[in-house]
Amino acid sequence: MYQPASRVICGQMFVTLEGPEGAGKSTVQALIAERLRADGREVLTTREPGSGDIGAAVRDVLLHGGSLEPLTELFLFLADRAEHVAKTIRPALKGGVIVLCDRHADSTVVYQGYGRGLDVERLRELNALATGGLKPDLTLLFDLDPAIGLARVRGADRLDREPLDFHERVRHGFLNEATREPDRWRVIDAGQPKESVVAQSIREIAAHRSF
Amino acid sequence: MYQPASRVICGQMFVTLEGPEGAGKSTVQALIAERLRADGREVLTTREPGSGDIGAAVRDVLLHGGSLEPLTELFLFLADRAEHVAKTIRPALKGGVIVLCDRHADSTVVYQGYGRGLDVERLRELNALATGGLKPDLTLLFDLDPAIGLARVRGADRLDREPLDFHERVRHGFLNEATREPDRWRVIDAGQPKESVVAQSIREIAAHRSF
Repeated sequence: MYQPASRVICGQMFVTLEGPEGAGKSTVQALIAERLRADGREVLTTREPGSGDIGAAVRDVLLHGGSLEPLTELFLFLADRAEHVAKTIRPALKGGVIVLCDRHADSTVVYQGYGRGLDVERLRELNALATGGLKPDLTLLFDLDPAIGLARVRGADRLDREPLDFHERVRHGFLNEATREPDRWRVIDAGQPKESVVAQSIREIAAHRSF
Repeated sequence: MYQPASRVICGQMFVTLEGPEGAGKSTVQALIAERLRADGREVLTTREPGSGDIGAAVRDVLLHGGSLEPLTELFLFLADRAEHVAKTIRPALKGGVIVLCDRHADSTVVYQGYGRGLDVERLRELNALATGGLKPDLTLLFDLDPAIGLARVRGADRLDREPLDFHERVRHGFLNEATREPDRWRVIDAGQPKESVVAQSIREIAAHRSF
């Protein structure tokens, strides 16, 4: 099928996928990558936390490590991010690849800041330190009512066992962040059929000003 | 044997043991603890990185995790520290215990700052964040020529495989930090016989203004 928009996609692009638990980010990520590849694009799918050399160990601590201090959790995410950006994301972008990353710096601002109450401005500074100033070209926010998302994933890992009001703060946080930088963020209704979510994601990527 | 100085030791005290590789900190720590306990003091010996719930995992990544980015290393140390201070050090101090900690925040300033070239002032701020502002009452610096220290431990773990000039910068860093806060730091010649190092450490602890 002819897809005019995607024909103009070329060169590097850093796209992050953000949103609450259960919004289907990883499935959508795989489907977006499949479409872009079918169109001849080089795509790297990756995620945080948990990619790269130390990623698996850090992910394991974060998701199954018992009751961590909010600051401990924060620094582990930042460690994972620093390694991921330096060893995986930057080299891929330099090679002209489209990087699709499931969660990145905005998740830290939203979960540790809006969710756990750490200072949001400080979190932005720490993210800038960890990433060396790298920011996504485009951030797709898969927005979903937490009650719906949690029903899909409840109990899957440690973060998912937070009370509902934590996830309400997270949803509010994501939407608030999206309004702060409207050029970078696109809000997508993750309650739509999967096919519509993927199609809209592809349109947003194709239409983005970087291309 | 009568030890007048140690008789006046009471209540909480946070003592950190700093210094280069091979200075014998862990052996001296155990011997100091033994003396203080023989004198009726409650003592907790602990270390960074690697105590507490997530400590072992973080220590494993740090010491055997291959070629980590300087920032990754930094954030892992901070994660370990935040957890350690909140879950172990503060509760012990609150209980009136003397805490003897083998490496703490100053090691980050010295190894990541003087050693790897990260911004020292920023490291101080990050330490303050990770510790919630807790500072040692007393820091014993076991100073030793790196060539001597390294001959003792060379190859033992990842940090020890750094070139000699890295360890020269570390030594300079420790001595420089000691001059910045002379009330808190005591420099002890770790080239002396072990018994003298321990005796001097005990004297410094006993003489410290907190008692």
